[in-house]
Amino acid sequence: MYQINDNYQKLPGSYLFSTIAKKVAAFTQANPDRSVIRLGIGDVTQPLVPAVIEAMHKAVDEMADAATFRGYAPDLGYEFLRRVIALEDYRKRGCAISEDEIFVSDGAKSDSGNIQELFSTDCKIAVTDPVYPVYVDSNVMAGRCGVYNQDTQMWSNVIYMPCTRENGFVPEFPKETPDLIYLCFPNNPTGTTVSRAKLQEWVDYANEKGSVIIYDAAYEAYITQEEVAHSIYECKGADTCAIEIRSFSKNAGFTGVRLGFTVVPKALMCGSVSLHTMWARRHGTKYNGAPYIMQRAGEAVYSEAGKAQLKEQVACYMKNAAVIKEGLTAAGYEVYGGVNAPYIWLKTPERMNSWEFFDYLLEKANVVGTPGSGFGPSGEGYFRLTAFGSYENTVAALERIKKL
Amino acid sequence: MYQINDNYQKLPGSYLFSTIAKKVAAFTQANPDRSVIRLGIGDVTQPLVPAVIEAMHKAVDEMADAATFRGYAPDLGYEFLRRVIALEDYRKRGCAISEDEIFVSDGAKSDSGNIQELFSTDCKIAVTDPVYPVYVDSNVMAGRCGVYNQDTQMWSNVIYMPCTRENGFVPEFPKETPDLIYLCFPNNPTGTTVSRAKLQEWVDYANEKGSVIIYDAAYEAYITQEEVAHSIYECKGADTCAIEIRSFSKNAGFTGVRLGFTVVPKALMCGSVSLHTMWARRHGTKYNGAPYIMQRAGEAVYSEAGKAQLKEQVACYMKNAAVIKEGLTAAGYEVYGGVNAPYIWLKTPERMNSWEFFDYLLEKANVVGTPGSGFGPSGEGYFRLTAFGSYENTVAALERIKKL
Repeated sequence: MYQINDNYQKLPGSYLFSTIAKKVAAFTQANPDRSVIRLGIGDVTQPLVPAVIEAMHKAVDEMADAATFRGYAPDLGYEFLRRVIALEDYRKRGCAISEDEIFVSDGAKSDSGNIQELFSTDCKIAVTDPVYPVYVDSNVMAGRCGVYNQDTQMWSNVIYMPCTRENGFVPEFPKETPDLIYLCFPNNPTGTTVSRAKLQEWVDYANEKGSVIIYDAAYEAYITQEEVAHSIYECKGADTCAIEIRSFSKNAGFTGVRLGFTVVPKALMCGSVSLHTMWARRHGTKYNGAPYIMQRAGEAVYSEAGKAQLKEQVACYMKNAAVIKEGLTAAGYEVYGGVNAPYIWLKTPERMNSWEFFDYLLEKANVVGTPGSGFGPSGEGYFRLTAFGSYENTVAALERIKKL
Repeated sequence: MYQINDNYQKLPGSYLFSTIAKKVAAFTQANPDRSVIRLGIGDVTQPLVPAVIEAMHKAVDEMADAATFRGYAPDLGYEFLRRVIALEDYRKRGCAISEDEIFVSDGAKSDSGNIQELFSTDCKIAVTDPVYPVYVDSNVMAGRCGVYNQDTQMWSNVIYMPCTRENGFVPEFPKETPDLIYLCFPNNPTGTTVSRAKLQEWVDYANEKGSVIIYDAAYEAYITQEEVAHSIYECKGADTCAIEIRSFSKNAGFTGVRLGFTVVPKALMCGSVSLHTMWARRHGTKYNGAPYIMQRAGEAVYSEAGKAQLKEQVACYMKNAAVIKEGLTAAGYEVYGGVNAPYIWLKTPERMNSWEFFDYLLEKANVVGTPGSGFGPSGEGYFRLTAFGSYENTVAALERIKKL
């Protein structure tokens, strides 16, 4: 009789956002007259910009004609897209990343879940706490995390780096040396970030200790402050210790389009083994390339028209962030994030934990947010609101919250 | 210092089709005046049909308007697509598969590479030989295959089930009981298949032995004979032992669109553990849904117009298959497949192995095929040609081959 991968059985309950979706569905079913405003999941609401729509229509038409039809894409992505990414996202920022170090994919979630496959199951991971659940869960499935303690909500074999108001949401170097370090800046869920100088310290640490940083930069388009790095490769020596994961979901509204990329520098070696070669092999074996139409859409993100249109789109979301931040502050909440990120992280009122505040907000204000404890034990007592709603809904939600 | 997943180092050389691409690139660079005809990789050449193009344009337009914009898709696929799949591909064929047993994805390659994650690394796999390389390579990466023997071209811990002209390309039950059995019918690469009655024997075998069949039905649209099953669920008891992987690549030309699905029946249990629940958890954690636009394109495949247009497209490819089959037979070759599949499997001439015949065909006829040995040791002495070229190219290729 065959046996299953037992590690799956270690995962407690269901994925955070599935739980929220079920709770909201139950509430709306019981209260069909209430209009619920969702500022929970990090899904965008603005339509794709005209430059992207135009590129998609054009690519669809190409697929209708045998002379321009495209079948299997190159495993690692079309050159037209990799070239523009290397130029716009890296070389223009002074990062020496070449186009053949870029691996186009169907999104940052897949990549951040799959990247751990390149490493030994003996590797020990370190995560900031709170953290995007995929980093930990994908390592649990691979058997790296030990056992889950229901009381502490921690895994026995994971190094947690708390990020709370006490340390300004900046992780400290752990006592025990990790093999893999997951960092996400600007951070999901806290909406806070670190300076370029601080990030350089992490790069130096990883190079010194022989660790790999898996750097999730999905929210870089929301950075407004000069001292914040858009890419980890702005730091010296990052090419020998860091993999960077990027997304089109938040800078271009591609959550339903599915496009992202991962940078694995050729200089990233484990002894004589190239991680670049390993990731190429994984792409070639278990993936079949991102769709041509979506890659043309990605290319349009970097066109002059696309850049201008998306700058405006991001600005709209950041206007929402300001509405939330100011509204909550006026209502007496302690608020973080929202300056370099589309997320606002608030301290829940005393005597209410994260899930209690979730229920309270859903029932009393009919507003959906995300309980901080869903992102890890240090998220307990915090709550995430996102700036991805419409302006009208965001304003309305804050009016409701202010009246509580 | 972190350690890598050593299993990757066990993989010999590069992925089969990368090697072919490199050889062809070298030849065309050295011989820029020769027109090379590619009947090698299983990529389609006909454009998407009008019904699909129309659905895509419509979906793109929906993405341009906030009122109809779609963000993250449901992890497991939109209901509109799962419903029509369950109806058209299963219930109409008498298979009791419901829409919530269908998991929409970005294609059969990803699914067939990822599905092994659900099982223990102690599981032993059985594959037909020759075989689509992804089944074995993805298991090598997970550490299930032991070590590779360069001489025999076999893995120490894989059960090979030879499929050659001697047994009519029908695998026999192995001596040792496997945990996971990979079957692909109609078969890639041999183009042959088995009867429904024979497939039922495999289902009975798996249920009796406690094995899981991973059934790749990517080529079912090419079936012309009544006695061949389009789905393994046409066999009694398959819902307790089989996972079926399906693709839109070959029946609808979606190789560059990327859409497929996998059926994991709820009745498929390992003791008290549901594989359906496990696969749902994997989708939720490491995947973010197929793009809305592509799912609408998939839906159009099942529309009346789409079905009619695609029936014609498949018929065109099968006309090519007949051209190849008849041409090769006339030229004195021993030929298999091409009746229920778009692949033709020929015996290489005496004193020429698969790669020698590849070089011979490339150099003398400027025709690219795929060496049978690239699919496993029992593929040695065979060669695959595909029917996915244009009619003109296929006829021209056969004229060249006949002249050799």
